[in-house]
Amino acid sequence: MKEEGITTHVASMKKGKIKGKYGYDVEVDIAFKDVNPEDYDILVISGGKGPEKMRLDKDALEITKHFFEKNKPVAAICHGPQVLVSAGVIKGRKATCWIGIRDDIIAAGALYEDSEVVIDGNFVSSRSPDDLYAFGREMIKLLK
Amino acid sequence: MKEEGITTHVASMKKGKIKGKYGYDVEVDIAFKDVNPEDYDILVISGGKGPEKMRLDKDALEITKHFFEKNKPVAAICHGPQVLVSAGVIKGRKATCWIGIRDDIIAAGALYEDSEVVIDGNFVSSRSPDDLYAFGREMIKLLK
Repeated sequence: MKEEGITTHVASMKKGKIKGKYGYDVEVDIAFKDVNPEDYDILVISGGKGPEKMRLDKDALEITKHFFEKNKPVAAICHGPQVLVSAGVIKGRKATCWIGIRDDIIAAGALYEDSEVVIDGNFVSSRSPDDLYAFGREMIKLLK
Repeated sequence: MKEEGITTHVASMKKGKIKGKYGYDVEVDIAFKDVNPEDYDILVISGGKGPEKMRLDKDALEITKHFFEKNKPVAAICHGPQVLVSAGVIKGRKATCWIGIRDDIIAAGALYEDSEVVIDGNFVSSRSPDDLYAFGREMIKLLK
């Protein structure tokens, strides 16, 4: 998808149409295994039930590690930080998440904060869809 | 509910009818806040989306701690171990769970095993509905 000079890819376990929680179709352009993380400027991990599956995909975890190792921008919301727990990159990082997984990111060593958006260097996180405005605002700042 | 000399209570955040994942009604007899854990011989924590809410209920966590502190029988399946993470009782215990939360119980210090049922003293756990036979068998053994 190309918008105002920004090219975005929706990646998942496999290419093709997937149905969102409210029945909308989303086109997955690329499978995690075909992603070269060097080609991307930011990694955005959304929430819902997806992260519990994404965290089991070894290619998704490699992509995630690349972004943290190279200190490239990462944004995660709701259940998204579950992927960061599995990639082993959240320890010692300031973060927030969906309250139902709060104790998991704390157990994994995150420095949890209950705020609409938490900024830790090139890593931003938010709690829920209610925080989307603040999440988007800080995500875009990372790209400037 | 009374069955073959066994009295069971379904506890949740509040009393009343709740609807299960497949639309069945379940009657909640007692709210967590009204449970005296001394009155019970076993704690069974089921899975699904419930544990992400139950783990935020301080009374549910107190009940859970009571069972572990007194070394009384506990059985947890699927997402159930999320409650054990929040209660701070899973560290150093052999356990299994739904694969999507595997890395969370490992981060919390559980000794994870990929088996249909894992028995660690008075604590048994299973992965998914496919393991229900083994889960039920070992749960009943704890009461004998």
